[in-house]
Amino acid sequence: MYKDIKVIAFDADDTLWVNETYFRDAENEFAALLNDYETENKIHQELFKKEIDNLELYGYGVKGFTLSMIECALELSNYQIPQKTLDRILNIGKEMLEKPIELLDGVEEVLQQLQGKYKLIVATKGDLLDQQRKLEKSGISKYFHHVEVMSEKKPIDYKKMLQRLDINPADLLMIGNSLKSDVLPLIEVGASAIHIPFHTTWAHETVSKEQKSTTDYKTLSNIKEVIDLLK
Amino acid sequence: MYKDIKVIAFDADDTLWVNETYFRDAENEFAALLNDYETENKIHQELFKKEIDNLELYGYGVKGFTLSMIECALELSNYQIPQKTLDRILNIGKEMLEKPIELLDGVEEVLQQLQGKYKLIVATKGDLLDQQRKLEKSGISKYFHHVEVMSEKKPIDYKKMLQRLDINPADLLMIGNSLKSDVLPLIEVGASAIHIPFHTTWAHETVSKEQKSTTDYKTLSNIKEVIDLLK
Repeated sequence: MYKDIKVIAFDADDTLWVNETYFRDAENEFAALLNDYETENKIHQELFKKEIDNLELYGYGVKGFTLSMIECALELSNYQIPQKTLDRILNIGKEMLEKPIELLDGVEEVLQQLQGKYKLIVATKGDLLDQQRKLEKSGISKYFHHVEVMSEKKPIDYKKMLQRLDINPADLLMIGNSLKSDVLPLIEVGASAIHIPFHTTWAHETVSKEQKSTTDYKTLSNIKEVIDLLK
Repeated sequence: MYKDIKVIAFDADDTLWVNETYFRDAENEFAALLNDYETENKIHQELFKKEIDNLELYGYGVKGFTLSMIECALELSNYQIPQKTLDRILNIGKEMLEKPIELLDGVEEVLQQLQGKYKLIVATKGDLLDQQRKLEKSGISKYFHHVEVMSEKKPIDYKKMLQRLDINPADLLMIGNSLKSDVLPLIEVGASAIHIPFHTTWAHETVSKEQKSTTDYKTLSNIKEVIDLLK
């Protein structure tokens, strides 16, 4: 099935290393900080709504998330939130940017085995500086021929990347945790994709059952299974 | 002098379109909002210091600038700043992201004359989404073969870009308003550069007289003069 593959692209957050967990932790602390004003469930809902409302303007990443937390805290508290709490929210964002990188199980082993046999690239969505910094801190940047930080992961964005890097879609296999961003758009542009779900998915990245019902991609539970599939 | 040039790279902010003016306006409004707590001069100084302190973590761009304004407002007011003022600061940032693009005098005319004769690229520092959006809004993206959004503009960053785009340094001419970011690092990697100062320069982008004393680059007052220089 994968005999023509020459290039393997990896999503980064929650595919190579832990990321979503830090957002979940931040959201939980945010909800606890605001629990004088609303139920935690309502706070989670409102923060998510605020993030989506701001997504076109801010894009993905910790800085936009932090700005959305501040805006949400001001509004949910009817502008009563203590200034010291806003300072804590600023620091939640800073701490997220400074988190150490925790590679997922099997990642380095898989990269070691694939290097030399395939051209390996990273295709990640998010903040340019933050994603570059995470890759540097991860210690695995040496395995990659190219790192593409994308502001969106729609089919058109992958098409542009393939053109620019002069890669034939049929030669590309993408591996990632998000069906919406790392799998379905690749199938659409004629590339292959493997889905490796992470234990938690941001609501914005979930897809409906109808969208999922395709046999065009494989789903694995650990990245190490990629090696056998490629044999 | 420029007869071997095959590729022309343009900085974007304050070279192709107005940018720094919007930061100056934002800083002035910020200082006015905080004038119960400090002199405007002190507020400007402290905001600049905060931006520099946060630069490694946040990088360049409006989102990091907005977070720095909020942090600075909390600290300068000893956490007394009204919540509604913080909301206004959030909106200063949003308004900056939504500003229309104002092309600088002669830009489109120059691009029209150079297209086809040279490979034209944009090499800009800043936020990925914001810079891509500005280029789309500008109406001039059609002239460019490639857009490089860089998290830094040091010699090593230009070297990596040249390698990746397979450009020989001697074939490249860079045009930009910042001596520090668009001119001196290019000279260092063996490319050519033209300096076109904008009427205002962010303090972080200024260079000392010693660094300036080089005859290795030309300084122009309007981008239209590039056409004659290249003849």
